[in-house]
Amino acid sequence: MQKKVSLSGFRDFLPKEARVRNYLKNKISQVFELFGFEPLETPALERAEVLLGKYGEEADKLLYLFEDRGRRKVGLRYDLTVPTARVLAFYANSQIKLPFKRYQIQDVFRAEKPQKGRYRQFLQCDVDIFGSKNVLSDAEILAVISRALEEVGLEKFVIRINSRKILLEALDKLGIEESQAQLAVLRVVDKLDKKGREGVEKELEEKGFSKNVLLEFEKLEPDEEIERIIELAENLGIEKVRISFDPFLVRGLDYYTGMIFEVVCQNFPSSIAGGGRYDNLVKALGGPDIPAVGGSLGFERIYEILKDKVSKQLEEGQGKVFVSVFSKELLQDSLQLVSKLRKEEIYCDFWLKDKYDLRQQLKQADEKGYRFVLILGPDEKKGGKVKIRDMRQRQEKLVDIQQVGKIIKEWE
Amino acid sequence: MQKKVSLSGFRDFLPKEARVRNYLKNKISQVFELFGFEPLETPALERAEVLLGKYGEEADKLLYLFEDRGRRKVGLRYDLTVPTARVLAFYANSQIKLPFKRYQIQDVFRAEKPQKGRYRQFLQCDVDIFGSKNVLSDAEILAVISRALEEVGLEKFVIRINSRKILLEALDKLGIEESQAQLAVLRVVDKLDKKGREGVEKELEEKGFSKNVLLEFEKLEPDEEIERIIELAENLGIEKVRISFDPFLVRGLDYYTGMIFEVVCQNFPSSIAGGGRYDNLVKALGGPDIPAVGGSLGFERIYEILKDKVSKQLEEGQGKVFVSVFSKELLQDSLQLVSKLRKEEIYCDFWLKDKYDLRQQLKQADEKGYRFVLILGPDEKKGGKVKIRDMRQRQEKLVDIQQVGKIIKEWE
Repeated sequence: MQKKVSLSGFRDFLPKEARVRNYLKNKISQVFELFGFEPLETPALERAEVLLGKYGEEADKLLYLFEDRGRRKVGLRYDLTVPTARVLAFYANSQIKLPFKRYQIQDVFRAEKPQKGRYRQFLQCDVDIFGSKNVLSDAEILAVISRALEEVGLEKFVIRINSRKILLEALDKLGIEESQAQLAVLRVVDKLDKKGREGVEKELEEKGFSKNVLLEFEKLEPDEEIERIIELAENLGIEKVRISFDPFLVRGLDYYTGMIFEVVCQNFPSSIAGGGRYDNLVKALGGPDIPAVGGSLGFERIYEILKDKVSKQLEEGQGKVFVSVFSKELLQDSLQLVSKLRKEEIYCDFWLKDKYDLRQQLKQADEKGYRFVLILGPDEKKGGKVKIRDMRQRQEKLVDIQQVGKIIKEWE
Repeated sequence: MQKKVSLSGFRDFLPKEARVRNYLKNKISQVFELFGFEPLETPALERAEVLLGKYGEEADKLLYLFEDRGRRKVGLRYDLTVPTARVLAFYANSQIKLPFKRYQIQDVFRAEKPQKGRYRQFLQCDVDIFGSKNVLSDAEILAVISRALEEVGLEKFVIRINSRKILLEALDKLGIEESQAQLAVLRVVDKLDKKGREGVEKELEEKGFSKNVLLEFEKLEPDEEIERIIELAENLGIEKVRISFDPFLVRGLDYYTGMIFEVVCQNFPSSIAGGGRYDNLVKALGGPDIPAVGGSLGFERIYEILKDKVSKQLEEGQGKVFVSVFSKELLQDSLQLVSKLRKEEIYCDFWLKDKYDLRQQLKQADEKGYRFVLILGPDEKKGGKVKIRDMRQRQEKLVDIQQVGKIIKEWE
């Protein structure tokens, strides 16, 4: 008999966990839809040529590539942007009209070294607008990310915002004008949270750049475009205190061309969402030449932060019912009661054994987290009643059998 | 630029399709939860040894197997029962209490020859009870499958039921007593729908069996157990007319040990759901020795049957709002209106361009299927009003801006 858990770096989600993940996924997609974003789904497998060379050399080593039975070179989905670029190359301006506001919530696969909080299969939640250069789209992305975080139950978060244009202009002024050099500097500054100021200044000098970069960045202020984006985002419902300009925010990835942002949450070390404008990426990935701006929620981090809270919330909120069976003679009545409650959309389970020991039934209901146990004995049946036992408050109430669904729905 | 659609046998789901699939998935999982089934999720990749030899020789050839970067032999999920058996081997009676009512809705991967209606990645929806031999569990599976089909909007379906015990007893009487011979006969009879009576009789004779098998099966009647299951299923809410005993129903797979069923839908050639009791399978698959009964919804078939209907229903039902922008001066007011409506949970999108031509805005709203367009011009603003244009009924109404959310929610 196999006594091994799943493959290293991969996870099974048992009911308690799967329920929380489903809850979060549903909440997030509801918000995305509320804001007029449309769902897209792409297959887990792509042609290897679609994936290779798109993420940089280091990332290519993390791709799950193999030959399928038809000797085609294929690979597992590594992110959601490359498959979307492929879809846009095929469908943009035919079945997909621009601007295209799409969201995509699917698993991606990366052969990273497994370690705490890092998995080889994990969920990505991307929300992007393709085909719009307008700053309204930048603001809309901030608004939808902010609302999604609020809806899942995160409150203490701040959106840090900056712009690649502002940063590159500052580097120009410092005499760092060559594009590859500029990106190299930004990648060093991106380590500020990890390495601290001194560490970054040391690395800058080692790489032959002026250590005055940070001093220069410190003086930066939002340009007209960023001010406009913040103003529009406020009009779209983000509270003013939630957004702050951060001159040291650079984002690690090379492809951003304008506004960039990250969301940080109190008491959590790393960012829980991020994104920005990337007007040249879709084309570089093999798609059509269309501008884009988007964001990504760090689902696995959000799940880690919220899982205990949401799990408790779901257990308490659900008011699930377990119908006990008093005796063989009363089985039929009990099942009809189950059927009646389910028709009234009440989550309802019942006793599956032929031994009708009530104590065992209460024990099982308790273990499985049922809030109410219904008891229908001969006396109850004679009087057209049923007993409701509240497992949390440890109290019982005898009610009319016709009313039981309504009473449970209104129970405090 | 790549101008190729996805890998052969794999599908992209554009918004219209993805929305229908999400709707069906959500409806189905809601019903499963309503009946007390709990969600389980397993990874897309498993160790090859977990998968190989579990599905028969033919199926082994359809597995997506490969070596990962750590030279581990791995494979993509081929079904949901084998991963569940692995999970049960690890967690049964510790984190998972028996009886375990679980559902699992995930993609599986099979390297079949792609053809119409057959894909290499497709969604499976399984619902099973592990650890209960009681006929109540068989009835519960019929009840949950039936309710799920009703909830997604299928009405004209019938559950055909039979029992492996009844069939094997009949074969015993015909002198076909050896287990492998019995299964061989059943696999031939399983072709009745495709080959017709004569074809099956011919194949039976060719394989050296009596062609009287069908004559013998014709006389079969439900035994006490099947009668009891039907009675219990009725108590659990299935209408009597929905269930019929079918002596020719055999199911193609070898592992069933008791009740078997299939659901057929009017005007659709193949079954849309099926299942049965399989008390020895979990152990054979490497799990613990626990009885099981379950069913599987043919999601891809159900999707094919319902996609146009559901898509239309979703478009009509949604009452989505598109807020037009009259002019630069009124942009701020329009965005605030968007924000207000979204806070009231109204699906709301807006115009992303700097050219405020109303005709273009109406055109885009129409193309994207928005039901309402809101118009906030200088006159409307002055009067604290907004104009609602109903794109379906081609009518307009001037309403108080504070009331607009409420009015749209109540709009017929």
